[in-house]
Amino acid sequence: MLKYTEERKLNNYKILIEYVGFKYNGWQKQGNTKNTIQEKFENILSELTGENIEIHASGRTDAGVHAKGQVANFKTNKDYPCDYLKNYFNKYLPDDVRVLSVEKASDRFHARLNAKAKTYEYKIANAEKPSVFEHKFCTYIEEKLDVSKMIKASEKFLGTHDFKAFCSNKRYKKSTVREIYDIDISVNDNIISVKIHGNGFLYNMVRIMVGTLVEVGLGKLKPEDIPEILKSKDREKAGYTMPPQGLALIKVEY
Amino acid sequence: MLKYTEERKLNNYKILIEYVGFKYNGWQKQGNTKNTIQEKFENILSELTGENIEIHASGRTDAGVHAKGQVANFKTNKDYPCDYLKNYFNKYLPDDVRVLSVEKASDRFHARLNAKAKTYEYKIANAEKPSVFEHKFCTYIEEKLDVSKMIKASEKFLGTHDFKAFCSNKRYKKSTVREIYDIDISVNDNIISVKIHGNGFLYNMVRIMVGTLVEVGLGKLKPEDIPEILKSKDREKAGYTMPPQGLALIKVEY
Repeated sequence: MLKYTEERKLNNYKILIEYVGFKYNGWQKQGNTKNTIQEKFENILSELTGENIEIHASGRTDAGVHAKGQVANFKTNKDYPCDYLKNYFNKYLPDDVRVLSVEKASDRFHARLNAKAKTYEYKIANAEKPSVFEHKFCTYIEEKLDVSKMIKASEKFLGTHDFKAFCSNKRYKKSTVREIYDIDISVNDNIISVKIHGNGFLYNMVRIMVGTLVEVGLGKLKPEDIPEILKSKDREKAGYTMPPQGLALIKVEY
Repeated sequence: MLKYTEERKLNNYKILIEYVGFKYNGWQKQGNTKNTIQEKFENILSELTGENIEIHASGRTDAGVHAKGQVANFKTNKDYPCDYLKNYFNKYLPDDVRVLSVEKASDRFHARLNAKAKTYEYKIANAEKPSVFEHKFCTYIEEKLDVSKMIKASEKFLGTHDFKAFCSNKRYKKSTVREIYDIDISVNDNIISVKIHGNGFLYNMVRIMVGTLVEVGLGKLKPEDIPEILKSKDREKAGYTMPPQGLALIKVEY
């Protein structure tokens, strides 16, 4: 009975976070990985609460990847006003990590397990030198890309497919089937933005999808090749894994 | 006659430039000042043309100040297509300096002497931690600013005034009278943007005007104090000189 009462007392906080990924080894602590964003949060929480708290994000982001709308949750025995927590985090987090909001969630909310959909954006600076204010958040490709072909190819990804060919983890044992709801490719100045909205993403899936679209844009692959690549389930058939600095997690839906 | 013919042959190029100012000692070479943006351009031009070319900007920007629309011109005996020059500059300029356009101007065009108006923007991150994607381009002020009072105060600057109290150079001997056409203060997320449009600006004038508006926002000065400060012509009466990283030259008109 005591245990039951104690568990009932836990507060579950849901937080919205943005970060610039350059300096970090991604979100997630893994083995001996140092300098993760998770670690920054857990250190602040243990200072604040005196508890040993684990914080769960909607998913790990890789080293160098940014976030404009990462979601995470953690549970504590303490009861803090949400604004107090937000200000406390922002006071102690480094300049390149910021908490956008804090709210109390139901006991059962889990940022990773309950995520229903995510949107990522990948930015490519193409052909001309990119804006000096944005170049760090883009991957530069000198050769001119055929964007209309990339859009055609992107349509082949829509719907439910086995994305095994678009996953860097060869030993992944769970289902590699995912649904892509929407891919929006737009060009502003000389920056190509590829926004991908889907119910979930495999390891490096966005970066390999974009790398494959880039190969279409370069004429190395044709839009009609995409269904073949999906069917093959063979990582070797898909395109490059694009570098991390152009990628940002934009939104997580529950 | 020969000299006359030679001068007629000179091509005058007008270029539009953006840069991130952090790494530079401003635009202008002065005495022993190293690492200026002017120097980067002149080195590239001397490599390209074999001539000793001087490039003139609309005005120097101070160390650490950014530009989204700096204008400069230079003359050369050579005749290059504008696109060729743009690509050549962008190939050899560092990542944080970019040429946006190159066009041929009339013989008489001079980027500084012919400038009729300029717009600067100053960004202040206020009260809350600023966006991780923008914080480097803002000055952070922790204490909450009263923006409506800042707007009231800004109206007192409009029109033609002697801005001697808003100039860091005490030995400036020319007229310190300038006309301010418009000041636009807006708030987005927690970033206050102050855009100032005028026919010309004295040394540090924008940074001192914004510093004075900040003192109004903090309640240290009142909007009604501005006319007094202008009348005093006394630098000591005006507010702080704001730091450079929040400032950008947005536009030059001819």
